Amino acid sequence: MKTVVMKFGGSSVADVQKVQNVARRVVEKKKAKNHVVVVVSAPGDMTDDLIEKAHQLCESPSEREMDMLLSTGEQVSIALLSMAIHHLKAGAVSLTGPQAGIYADHNHTRAKITKILPDKIQEELRKGNVVIVAGFQGINPNQDIATLGRGGSDLTAVALAAALKADACEIYTDVSGVYTTDPRIVPEARKLDKISYDEMLEMAGAGSQVMQARSIEVAKKYGVELQVRSTFLKEEGTWIIEEVKGMEDVIVSSIAFDKNQSKLTVLGVEDRPGIAARIFGELAEAHINVDMIIQSAAQDRTNDISFTIARTDLKKALSILKEVGKELKSQGISCEEKVAKVSIVGVGMKSHAGVAAKMFKTLSDEKINIEMISTSEIKVACVVKEFECQQAVKALHKAFELHKK
Amino acid sequence: MKTVVMKFGGSSVADVQKVQNVARRVVEKKKAKNHVVVVVSAPGDMTDDLIEKAHQLCESPSEREMDMLLSTGEQVSIALLSMAIHHLKAGAVSLTGPQAGIYADHNHTRAKITKILPDKIQEELRKGNVVIVAGFQGINPNQDIATLGRGGSDLTAVALAAALKADACEIYTDVSGVYTTDPRIVPEARKLDKISYDEMLEMAGAGSQVMQARSIEVAKKYGVELQVRSTFLKEEGTWIIEEVKGMEDVIVSSIAFDKNQSKLTVLGVEDRPGIAARIFGELAEAHINVDMIIQSAAQDRTNDISFTIARTDLKKALSILKEVGKELKSQGISCEEKVAKVSIVGVGMKSHAGVAAKMFKTLSDEKINIEMISTSEIKVACVVKEFECQQAVKALHKAFELHKK
Repeated sequence: MKTVVMKFGGSSVADVQKVQNVARRVVEKKKAKNHVVVVVSAPGDMTDDLIEKAHQLCESPSEREMDMLLSTGEQVSIALLSMAIHHLKAGAVSLTGPQAGIYADHNHTRAKITKILPDKIQEELRKGNVVIVAGFQGINPNQDIATLGRGGSDLTAVALAAALKADACEIYTDVSGVYTTDPRIVPEARKLDKISYDEMLEMAGAGSQVMQARSIEVAKKYGVELQVRSTFLKEEGTWIIEEVKGMEDVIVSSIAFDKNQSKLTVLGVEDRPGIAARIFGELAEAHINVDMIIQSAAQDRTNDISFTIARTDLKKALSILKEVGKELKSQGISCEEKVAKVSIVGVGMKSHAGVAAKMFKTLSDEKINIEMISTSEIKVACVVKEFECQQAVKALHKAFELHKK
Repeated sequence: MKTVVMKFGGSSVADVQKVQNVARRVVEKKKAKNHVVVVVSAPGDMTDDLIEKAHQLCESPSEREMDMLLSTGEQVSIALLSMAIHHLKAGAVSLTGPQAGIYADHNHTRAKITKILPDKIQEELRKGNVVIVAGFQGINPNQDIATLGRGGSDLTAVALAAALKADACEIYTDVSGVYTTDPRIVPEARKLDKISYDEMLEMAGAGSQVMQARSIEVAKKYGVELQVRSTFLKEEGTWIIEEVKGMEDVIVSSIAFDKNQSKLTVLGVEDRPGIAARIFGELAEAHINVDMIIQSAAQDRTNDISFTIARTDLKKALSILKEVGKELKSQGISCEEKVAKVSIVGVGMKSHAGVAAKMFKTLSDEKINIEMISTSEIKVACVVKEFECQQAVKALHKAFELHKK
């Protein structure tokens, strides 16, 4: 008998009909002689509604109380799904994160899972029940409910699959798998049968919304085989697995992009140690993630330091840079609000030369100017103007022949 | 420093403005140098909405899963109220029933509280926090959430007041106290300053909606002084306390009525032992509460057995009686769907004669026929036709001069 963890997001349990659909999929899986553990998120807009109420009561609500509030969403989902499964004459039992033995640290609203003691889950599986676990939540050392932050339900599913030594972890979502790029931009985009953990990690960093990096990291660490697939269609999705022989034959497996980027430059700061540390230290303290960084020497023994951040952080970053810029006697701050990052990802790059060059040539042929470049062993990322992003993605998809299997 | 338990029902926390209002009342109480524990119910219609969803998924949902589902309502309330109190710059912490140390038995959806270990509450009170506890819920021996059934939040409040040896337990509601009768029917109805536990118990049994009997029983057992008062007005409410000297001077303290009654008669059953046991045994098994019972001997050595039930149970009761009636060879079942029970309640009756007679005379003067009578030491209840109920209440209120202090 195999053990399978199935994870369904909020849009999959948004209303009664959708809960019934999920229940049918779960019961099918169970009838195929599996032990089934299901992880669910809060229904549809419930989390947003609760957040709005909280902000009406208090500008910056206590994080402990936010967790108390938001964790009710998943609890509603697990109870309703359990009832829907009972209606199909199958055994099911719902467990909150704490009941499922998911322990978390003290960081409310963004807690890390510290350990999982799945005794209760295993006991219920032995009884023949489907076990439905509330995603996104655990119990902290203070016996309080702590939520796991963005992508928390995926993380719950992957971590449970690791703790249970499950044979597979299936992430059900509204896309049917991982594509060579976003099909809304490139209609020829192709669903991948499989992709390696490392490629998925690069894609998450490159702006792919399919899964958060933290869940993939845990899957990689514990060797949990993931499948991303559709809640509504029966077709197989994309397996995310350890790199296997043959994967390297494909040089580029996908094109990712992130339009939510801005580029900032601190102009003409002194060329001496400690300057970069000062700038990026201040930004880090304000929880602003800096992505690419370029330092270019100017004529007069001063440097320009350019970097990219998420556009949503722009306002906060500018006000910090004005202060720091003054202190460092910079010649000013320049800002390009609307840039995008376009990345090609593929394990095949490790053993093939000229991949980056082909990317640059493709963009150049399209007369798209590359403003910044960053590379890893299996990724090349370029910053371009936002309005050129779609054109870049289409051209690269064609150049690397991603529509062909 | 006094310890006060404040309980707010669902209509008091139905929206953001109402939660803010409750927060202000709580902070005022706290500033008057009190330790404050607050018990809240689920916001407004949330419980009904969740029940509806559950029934869309499953005709008779598992009781364990219903408790999992419904307990989220109170959890939303405690978190929101805590935020609203923080906004007023006061310390507050929310606790679910299980976190507050409320232990319950195995009876899902109608669990009894088995014990309370209020260590966590006391620890938070010592830190100077207002402690906000989710009403209506506890943890059962299986480590599952169990809800306490109708009136469960009142019960939570009273039981916590007992466990904490609180100086008072204030039940905030949309009426401003206990009245001599329903002011919507008798405009001269007067709010009582105080009333004894026993009178409140009789009133709950007689159809008063103010508080459920189980909470009053616990308050009586542990000597918890209760005050029923308005969420929205500042005025003092009604104290529910142990009988004190002087209370007996008031012969009748209030008139209660219950319009949700039906009368059933099993006609012409044999006059031998075991017949009544058979009839009422079957009804009890179906969880139908029988209120008044009258057995009248007919000429032909058979009996007619009449009794009243809640009108909501009528359909179920009739189908049971048809079966049992056949077995017992009864001459038929007669049913009067719309009757009402009108009761006068007062500790003074114990030491005053002629109270019942005065009630009967008053109703007779109004040409209201009394169909059944039941009495206790401090109560006389009469069954009348439903359409005569209001007239009966008005006449009795006047006859016993309840408008006068």
